[in-house]
This record gives sequence, C-alpha cells and structure tokens, in this order.
Amino acid sequence: MNMNIAVAQSGGPTCAINASLAGVFEAGIISKGVDKIYGSFNGIEGIIENRLADLSEYLKTNEDLELLMRTPSAALGSCRRKLPEYENDPEIYKTITECFRRYNIGLFLYIGGNDSMDTVAKLSRYYAENSIDIKVIGIPKTIDNDLYGTDYCPGFGSAAKYVAATVQEITRDSNVYSVPSVTIVETMGRHAGWLTAASACMRLNGESAPHLIYLPEHTFCSEKFINDVKEMMKKHKAVICAVSEGVRTADGKFAAEEYQSCKTDAFGHAYLSGIGKYLENLVSEKIGCKVRSIELNVMQRCSSHFASLTDIEGARSIGAEAVNAGVDGETGCMMTFERVSSSPYEYTISRIPADKAANSERFFPKEWINDEGNDVTDDALKYLMPLIQGELLPIMKNGMPQHFQFR
Amino acid sequence: MNMNIAVAQSGGPTCAINASLAGVFEAGIISKGVDKIYGSFNGIEGIIENRLADLSEYLKTNEDLELLMRTPSAALGSCRRKLPEYENDPEIYKTITECFRRYNIGLFLYIGGNDSMDTVAKLSRYYAENSIDIKVIGIPKTIDNDLYGTDYCPGFGSAAKYVAATVQEITRDSNVYSVPSVTIVETMGRHAGWLTAASACMRLNGESAPHLIYLPEHTFCSEKFINDVKEMMKKHKAVICAVSEGVRTADGKFAAEEYQSCKTDAFGHAYLSGIGKYLENLVSEKIGCKVRSIELNVMQRCSSHFASLTDIEGARSIGAEAVNAGVDGETGCMMTFERVSSSPYEYTISRIPADKAANSERFFPKEWINDEGNDVTDDALKYLMPLIQGELLPIMKNGMPQHFQFR
Repeated sequence: MNMNIAVAQSGGPTCAINASLAGVFEAGIISKGVDKIYGSFNGIEGIIENRLADLSEYLKTNEDLELLMRTPSAALGSCRRKLPEYENDPEIYKTITECFRRYNIGLFLYIGGNDSMDTVAKLSRYYAENSIDIKVIGIPKTIDNDLYGTDYCPGFGSAAKYVAATVQEITRDSNVYSVPSVTIVETMGRHAGWLTAASACMRLNGESAPHLIYLPEHTFCSEKFINDVKEMMKKHKAVICAVSEGVRTADGKFAAEEYQSCKTDAFGHAYLSGIGKYLENLVSEKIGCKVRSIELNVMQRCSSHFASLTDIEGARSIGAEAVNAGVDGETGCMMTFERVSSSPYEYTISRIPADKAANSERFFPKEWINDEGNDVTDDALKYLMPLIQGELLPIMKNGMPQHFQFR
Repeated sequence: MNMNIAVAQSGGPTCAINASLAGVFEAGIISKGVDKIYGSFNGIEGIIENRLADLSEYLKTNEDLELLMRTPSAALGSCRRKLPEYENDPEIYKTITECFRRYNIGLFLYIGGNDSMDTVAKLSRYYAENSIDIKVIGIPKTIDNDLYGTDYCPGFGSAAKYVAATVQEITRDSNVYSVPSVTIVETMGRHAGWLTAASACMRLNGESAPHLIYLPEHTFCSEKFINDVKEMMKKHKAVICAVSEGVRTADGKFAAEEYQSCKTDAFGHAYLSGIGKYLENLVSEKIGCKVRSIELNVMQRCSSHFASLTDIEGARSIGAEAVNAGVDGETGCMMTFERVSSSPYEYTISRIPADKAANSERFFPKEWINDEGNDVTDDALKYLMPLIQGELLPIMKNGMPQHFQFR
C-alpha cells in the first residue's frame, strides 16, 4: 500500500527553505511509493494541532513551484518548539503519531536547524524502539551555516551573497566624501561567524574592503579593535568593518553586554543595543572621526530577490533526495552535502545521524582566521565562492517580485 | 572654438547618480560643440581644489559605461559644500572661474539636490551679471524625491523599488510564527514621505501590507499609533508598519526626540535612537506583544543590484539632455521630467529656474494621505507605479556584482 508524506518547516526562515519544500513536493509527486504530500503549518505544531493541507491543492502548476522557490521565509509557517524527551511527555508522542496515522503518513520530513534535527532524532528513535513504521528525516536549513556534517546549509549561500553584495554597495556609499570615516556593518551569527566571513566575497573581484572582519570564533577586545581601526585609517579613507553580532570578550560575554547593562530606555527596560551601535559609539569616543553603524537585520535571511542559484538549486535537490532516502527506508538522519571539488563546484548528497547534527555546532575554522583575529584567509574565500554563484531572479509583476502564499 | 564640459556630483549618493554621469559623458562625446568632458572629484570641491580628470581616460569602452550605470553612489565622489553669496566671498567665485578657464570649460553640469541647485543658481547668476560665457545647469538627484518642479528625482525610483520589495520580503519573514507580532520598518525621509509611501507598492500585487504608513506630512501622535496598531492586530496576525524617520508630533518636534533626550550612552552622549527603535519600545510597553524594528539605512540609496530600469534610464536621459540644453545656450536651470501619462508612462524633459528648485521643497501631497493619517491612497500608487518598472541587473563576475571605480 502506498504511503503519504508529511513535510514541515521550522526555526528561523531563510531564502532557501521553500526551495527544499518544492523539492520534496516534486520528488514526492513522481515517487511510485507515495500518494499524497501533506504540508504541516507551523512546523511540528501543525502535526500536534492537526493543521495539515494536501499540497497538491495549492501547488497546481509549474509556475506555483517556480514562485514557491523564489519566496523567502517559510511558506508553511515555522515554530520554535522543541520536543521533550519521551519519558517526560509520552502523550505528545502519541498525539503526533495519531496525526500521522490519520493521514497515513509513512515519512515525515522536517526542514530546519539544530532543534529540528533534535525532533527528528527523538521521533525516529521512538518509532524504531516501538516498531512503528514511520520514517523521519531532517533537511538542513540555516543562514548561520553552523549545522554539523554538511558542506553548507541551504539558505546560507543566499544570505552570504546578500551580505557580500550589500557590504560592497555600502562600501561605494562610504567612499563618496573626502573626510575619513569608519563604517561598521553588523551581521547575524550569534555563535558562528560564517555569514560575517562571507562579506569577504567582495574581494573576489579585487576590492580591498571589508578592511576588518571580526567573528565570534576569535576573542574580541575593544582596545585591539580601536587600534586596528586606527591602523586601517592610515591606508584607507573609508574603513569598512564587518562584525558578527556574537563577538565575545575574553570572559565569554557578548562584547556589547557591558555597554547594554548600564543603559535603560525611557520605559526603564534594559536597552539591547547591538555590537554595531556599541562600536560606533566607541569609535566616536576614542577616535572622533565620522562613523556609522548598519545592521543588516532580517534582510540577510529574506532577500530572495538576489538569491544564490547554487544555494536554491542545492536546497531543491536535497529536499528531493530526502524523499528518495525515506522511500528507500532511511530514517533518523539529516541529509548532507559532501563537497567533491570547489572549482568546478561538485558535491554529492549523503546523510548523517540526526542526533549528531542536533548536538553539534560547526564553527568557522580557526585556521581560516588570520593571526591578528581581524580578517579571514584565502582558504575561506575558496570555500565560500562556489556557494554564491548564479542568481535565481524573481518573477516580476507590476515592477514587484511575486511571492507564493498558501491561502 | 569648441568648449569642454565639467561635470560633478554632490549631496547624498543614490543608485542613479552615475547613470546621469554616463548620460552626460555619452551626449558630450557625440556633441559637435564639445571637445572633452572633465569630471570634478568631490563636487564643487574638485573645481576649487583643481582636482579634475578627463573622463575619456577612464571611460574607454561601452562596458565601462554599462558598469558605471550599475554602480551605486557617486563614482566621482561627493561633497556637502554650499557656495556663499558672492558678496560674502568673491574669492571663491574667482577660484572656480579660474579653474573653468584653465580647462576651457563652457558648461558646468552639477548633479545633486537642493544645495547643488543653489550653487547652480548662484554661479550662473554671477556669470550672467559679469558677462562670462560659462553656462551652469543642474541635474536633479535625490532618493527623497523632494525637489520642486520635476515629476520625480532620479534615484528615487530605485530606492522606492528597493523599499517596496524589501518590506514585502520582511512581511514574508514576519508571517512565519503563529504568535501575533508587530514589525516596524523605518525608512529615510527627514521632511518628505515619498520613500515611506513607496512601501505601499507591494500592494500592486494584492498584498495587504504594509498595514500602517506614517509620513512626515501628517502630524504623528504616539497614542493614536498604539490605537492604530491595536486595531490592525484584530485583522492581521503580523502587523507591518512603515514609518518615516521624519515623523513629527504636533509641537513640530521629531517624534523620537523626547525619548532620545532622556537617554545617554555609556560615554555620556545623547543617544540618537531612530523612530523605529522608539516605536518598538512603545509597542513593547503598551501592548506587550512580540515586536521588532528594522532600519533600512543606507541600503535604500545604494542597493543598485535591484535598481529600477525606468529610474536609471531616466537618469541617463536627463543627463544627456542637460548637455544638449547647455550646448544650446541654456543656463541657470535645473532639468526636469514632466509626466505626460502614467499608463503607459510617458514624459518629456524640460527645465525650471535653478533658484526655484533650490528654495522649494516638494512634499508628499496631503490629499494622497488617508483621513486617519496612517495610510496612502490609490492616487499615490498610480503616481509611484511607473517609477519602479523594470530592473537593470548587475553585470556579475565570480558571483558578485561588478562596479566601476575611478582609480
């Protein structure tokens, strides 16, 4: 008897998470062992709350799929819910399994990051231990690129391309005046510096900026930062710094933390300033030159109008391969990319145990950070370059990109 | 005897200011009355300090021009220098004129905003009164779209397209979770709300967001804002607000001013928070829901990777027409667009006296703001729509947009 598939999206949105959904749908439709593909709204919450939809009722034409791949963020909605251990809440495992039974689900695919892989590991273990024939497979996704065991995480390539292109444009903007200036660009990455490092991609075409790059993987020191900036100001009229939101001082605290703790806003709340604003004020105080800070904010993860084609195609392929792996009987794993070659870029799609992905983080390699701790090496560029190649341009209407929405 | 042309760029950079430079160069090269086209670095400062370059030494191929048109910000550099009245500093007028004589300049073209038009007006008056045969013409440029007498200002169309597409992407990003939320997007526009209003362009394809839009042309009231948000939360799970940095309260002060004045940073400086952060804290305090604010910052003016083709082509044409007008003997004017029809979009290029442009501001029409003061009307959309049509995509290399640089 044929089975149905359930697919859900979880965690922070990216530009590629819908491409993986499209890949799942396409592979599911043509797979002989599969009847229907159900989408769960708001990740595992939709399974628990019985909010699922037959995706073929929404994805009716090839154009729908093309639009879905070009739509940023999780079209099915997301959640931030982590499954408890079975011993602590057996009921929720039963609720989930009842839902799967109701829809005849034989394969559940969860597109997400660490927490989603934790759910994949827990659910698949429960099914294995209880001889329940439901397979569970994870599909990686995060702009932070910090999932263990995969060459890259879908979503990262597009975010990297946006960050690099935007820092390049900001560099043009910063160079117009004849007075010396410092520009600080704050990028996402609470623990891992991949996205901040990606700003260096603008050097692929001979740019000198960003002149200073600070990642969470290297201890941050405010005095050293000011000295670095002073040195760079001798060489460049407009100094461009890329700084990860997650840089920490030697005591393990976020670098902006001390600055934040002594401030409250008009309502008496602690004001959570970012590292960019902190360093802007520091440069203003210690150097006194023209300075500004720019936070790239959620645009890093949702700017699909300039997505990396390599990233989106990879996301689609890994979604499709997850279906094939599940139909072949695999479970409890996260799909991965294994790089075969950087130039030309070649990869194979493989798997690792989901609990390994759930409990590990992949940091930016220390050997790709220079000795000064204020830049990345050429090896980092060799790694990054293939991931930003090509563009998947929007399908335009009335001068605006079109998006796909389930409604 | 043939003359030479000098061209310079001034004020805040845009995505279209280099397209006007390209238009000047192309028209100058083919004009029979013109020998060389000199570029002045950093606006009028380059004239005063004798920093000019023969542009044909840099713009050698068609590809150079194509790259220049796709390069954000002022490739020749900019300045923020306003010319004094002749009576207050006759020397500087002599210095400028000596430079023009040295390079045999018969026509000076200044691409910029109000202050640049003030320079055009003052210099051209001085030449007319002293029978000096040097023509001076202004070419409009500003993302704020607030120059008097022209249908739009080159640079605005691309900024508008970026703002609308980005707010649309932020809307997708804001919709993923099942909890109610408020997202506040802060856009540029200290005095005029054109750019903030442009966020409404996402409605051209049936979107409901942004749900609330606040412009400087309508008095801002924090209590009204909170009530507006509460009302919208009844209809929409994720409420999206677009707010101009320049919104003011009934007493004429910037709305975030009171909030700012009671705060100092760790160095004792008054902390200049934007309206977005202010309203984020206000929503958090008064409503207590999930809320975030996003500042679009300089990306609004420099995101040339998604520039409006209509805008860039207009900028190029108006630059070329400025050359033709100057060769025909015109002086003391700013070039303008006159809209003939919105659909299809048709315009002619004309002129107004530069002093009129220098001393006027064009505000967003009050009749295009709804009675509540929290949205724009369909007439605004009719005006905006033609300006965001088409894309001038980057010329890519190694996965990155290429830019033109004078070096």
